[in-house]
Amino acid sequence: FSSKFPSAETTIFSVMSALAQKHEAINLSQGFPNYPVDPRLIELVHKYMLAGKNQYAPMAGVPELNQRLAKKIDSLYGASYDPATEITITAGATEAIFSSIMAFVRPGDEVIVIEPAYDCYLPAIELAGAKGVPYALKAPDWAIDWEELGQLITEKTRMFIINSPHNPIGRCFREEDMQALTDLLAPTNIILLSDEVYEHIVFDGQKHLSALSYPALRDRTLATYSFGKTLHSTGWKMGYVVGAARLMREFRMVHQFNVFSANTAVQYAIAEYLEDPSTYLGLSAFFQAKRDLFLDLMKDTPFQFEPSGGSYFQLGDYSQISELNDVDFARWLTIEKGVAVIPLSPFYSQEQPDNKVVRFCFAKTEETLAAAARRLEGL
Amino acid sequence: FSSKFPSAETTIFSVMSALAQKHEAINLSQGFPNYPVDPRLIELVHKYMLAGKNQYAPMAGVPELNQRLAKKIDSLYGASYDPATEITITAGATEAIFSSIMAFVRPGDEVIVIEPAYDCYLPAIELAGAKGVPYALKAPDWAIDWEELGQLITEKTRMFIINSPHNPIGRCFREEDMQALTDLLAPTNIILLSDEVYEHIVFDGQKHLSALSYPALRDRTLATYSFGKTLHSTGWKMGYVVGAARLMREFRMVHQFNVFSANTAVQYAIAEYLEDPSTYLGLSAFFQAKRDLFLDLMKDTPFQFEPSGGSYFQLGDYSQISELNDVDFARWLTIEKGVAVIPLSPFYSQEQPDNKVVRFCFAKTEETLAAAARRLEGL
Ligand SMILES: CSCCC(=O)C(=O)O
Ligand SMILES: CSCCC(=O)C(=O)O
Repeated sequence: FSSKFPSAETTIFSVMSALAQKHEAINLSQGFPNYPVDPRLIELVHKYMLAGKNQYAPMAGVPELNQRLAKKIDSLYGASYDPATEITITAGATEAIFSSIMAFVRPGDEVIVIEPAYDCYLPAIELAGAKGVPYALKAPDWAIDWEELGQLITEKTRMFIINSPHNPIGRCFREEDMQALTDLLAPTNIILLSDEVYEHIVFDGQKHLSALSYPALRDRTLATYSFGKTLHSTGWKMGYVVGAARLMREFRMVHQFNVFSANTAVQYAIAEYLEDPSTYLGLSAFFQAKRDLFLDLMKDTPFQFEPSGGSYFQLGDYSQISELNDVDFARWLTIEKGVAVIPLSPFYSQEQPDNKVVRFCFAKTEETLAAAARRLEGL
Repeated sequence: FSSKFPSAETTIFSVMSALAQKHEAINLSQGFPNYPVDPRLIELVHKYMLAGKNQYAPMAGVPELNQRLAKKIDSLYGASYDPATEITITAGATEAIFSSIMAFVRPGDEVIVIEPAYDCYLPAIELAGAKGVPYALKAPDWAIDWEELGQLITEKTRMFIINSPHNPIGRCFREEDMQALTDLLAPTNIILLSDEVYEHIVFDGQKHLSALSYPALRDRTLATYSFGKTLHSTGWKMGYVVGAARLMREFRMVHQFNVFSANTAVQYAIAEYLEDPSTYLGLSAFFQAKRDLFLDLMKDTPFQFEPSGGSYFQLGDYSQISELNDVDFARWLTIEKGVAVIPLSPFYSQEQPDNKVVRFCFAKTEETLAAAARRLEGL
C-alpha cells in the first residue's frame, strides 16, 4: 500500500518530550502541569468507581455533567444550551476537534486556519479530504487583519477555526475581533470551530470572549473545551463540545462511532467537583502568578518577552542568543542547556520569516521554573 | 449545510438502553456487565492517580503496559510484537477500529464486512469515502462459505474486517476458517482488521484463534482489543491495537490527532493488574457458567437457543412467540415484558430474511438473569 500520510510526522509535543526525557532536561515543552491534581477530585473518581460507575456512559455524556456544564455556560457566557442535545462529553478536546472536522468537512472543501496553529487541525482537515487555508499571524504583535483574512473566504470555505486564548501566542480575542468575526461570517454558511481550551486562563483583567456569547454566531458555532487544561489533569483525556442541536446531531454521528463515550466515573466526579465554581474561577489568578514568576525568574537571561495574555504558554525571543532556526535552537536548548521548549515553525504549514521565537510552558511548580531559569542564566 | 450523514442513526445500543431505562426493563441489550469491577483494580487506579500519573501518557501508551501486552501476546498467541512500535493503547476498541479504518481506507475503496456486523464499522468506512461490501451470514449455522466470500474481492478491496469471537452471533473461527482466510488474502494487498475484543471469552473447550498467530498474515494485520470487555469496565474506554510496524505507523498518524493518548493512571493500573494472568485466563470459564445458567433459567420460556460459542452474547429464536419483525419484537419485549434485548437487523446493511432472532447479553449477575427469565416465563 501507499501511505495516506506520506509527509505526516510525529507531533512536535511527543518529539520534544521524548528529547527532554532522553537528556534529562527540564520539560517546559509539551503543555501539561507538573504539580498534583486536587486530591479531592481524585477521591471523587475513586468514590464513583467504587460505587460501580464503570460501565458505558451515555454517548453524549453523564446527564449530571452535561447539566452542570449548561449552568456554567449560562452563568459565564450568558448563553443557553440544552444539556441533552447541545453538549457532548468527549475523549479530550483533541477528540472534540477531530470529530468536529470529520463531521462537517468534505473532500474539496477549504478550512481557514489561523497560524501558528495547534498541530492537530491540519492533519484532520487533510484526512477529511479538504485543504487548510492558512492565515499567518506575524510578529511582533500577532494581530489579525480581518479584512485581509476575509480575502481567504471562497465558495469552498466550509469551516473557520479560531483559538482564543491562543496557543502558542497567548493572545486573546477582543471585542473588535469578535465583531469583525461576526460580520465576516454573517453572509456565509461557514461553520465556526472555536477552540477555547484555555477559557479560564486569561490575564491582566481581560475577560475570555467565548463564541458562545454571540447570538449571531449561535447557529454555526461548535466550541471545544478541555477538562485536562482546567483541572490540571491532561492525562485523563476528558473534554467537551458545545453547539446548536442541528450541528451537534452531526458531531455525534462521528463521535458515537469514533469513541462512543468517555470515562463514566470521571464524568460523575467532575460533575460533583464543578458544583463549586471556585474550582475554575481562580485559574486566571493562579496562572498569572506563574507567568509573572516565570518572567521575573527569567529576567537575567538574554531571552526577550512580551507577557502572555492567556493560556499557560509564554513566547520568548532568542535573537540575542543564537542564529539557529527555531527547531535547531529548541533541540540545542534541550540537549545542551537542559531546558526543553517548543519551536514555532511546526505550527505553520508554510515557510515563515525566521522569527527566532520559542514557546515555554509555565504550568510548572515554582521549583521547576526556578531550576529552568538557573540553567538559562548563563546563556 | 447538508448533512454528511443524512441516513445515519443513533446506535441501536443507545436506543435500547434508553428504552430499557424509560420502561424500567431489565437491560440485556447493550453489552456491559452489571457486577462490580475487581476492587483491586480500582485501588490500583487510585494509587496511580495519587502518585501523580495524571498528565499525558505517551501517544503510543505507557511503556509498562505496552510491554506487558507484548508478553501476553507472545505467551497466548506465540507471536512477537515490539511494544514500542507495534502496540498502541487506545480510547477503547471502538477508537482502535475507527482510527484503523481512517488510516487505510480511501475514497472509492471497498471494505468487505461480515454481517451481522458490529455497527461502528460501516459508518467509519463511509466516512472515509469508501463502500462497505457485506457478506451476510445466514441462519441457522451462520458459517462462512469462503469461496463465495472470495467472489467479493475486487481491485478496489482495501480492507477486510473479521470478528471472532463474533458479536452478535457468538461463533468463533476454526482452523479451517483461518486457513481459508490466509489463502484468500495471500495473493492480495488487502489489509486485515481483526476485531478480537472477546478474545478471552470462548466456550466448550475451543481456543481463540488470533490473527496474530499466523505468520502469513503478519504483514497485513491490525488486531483490536478491549480492556472494557476483559476487565468488566466498559465505561473506562480503554483498548489497544496490535500490528506490524509499517501498519502501526499509519495507525498512529490518525490516533495522535484523534485522541492523542489514553488515561495515564488507568494504563499503569492495568499494566500492574495484568501481571497476574489469572485476571484474564479464567474468563472463559466465568462466562461459560453464566451462559449455562442463562440457558438453564430460560428453558421454560418459548425461546429457542443454540448455545453461544463465544462473546458474552446469546442469540434467541422467538419464532414460537411472535410474528413481529425483530425491531418491533425487541421494543415489545422491552416495553411489555420488561426485558430489553437487541434486534439483529441493525447489524445488516441490506434487507435480510425475517430471521426472528434477538440477542441477549448474559454478562449479568445471577439475580438479574433469574429475574429476566421469570419475566419471560409466561410468554
Ligand atoms: C497532546 S500534547 C499537546 C499539549 C498541548 O496542548 C501543547 O503543548 O500545546
Ligand atoms: C458502544 S455500546 C455497544 C456495546 C457492545 O459491545 C454491544 O452491545 O455489542
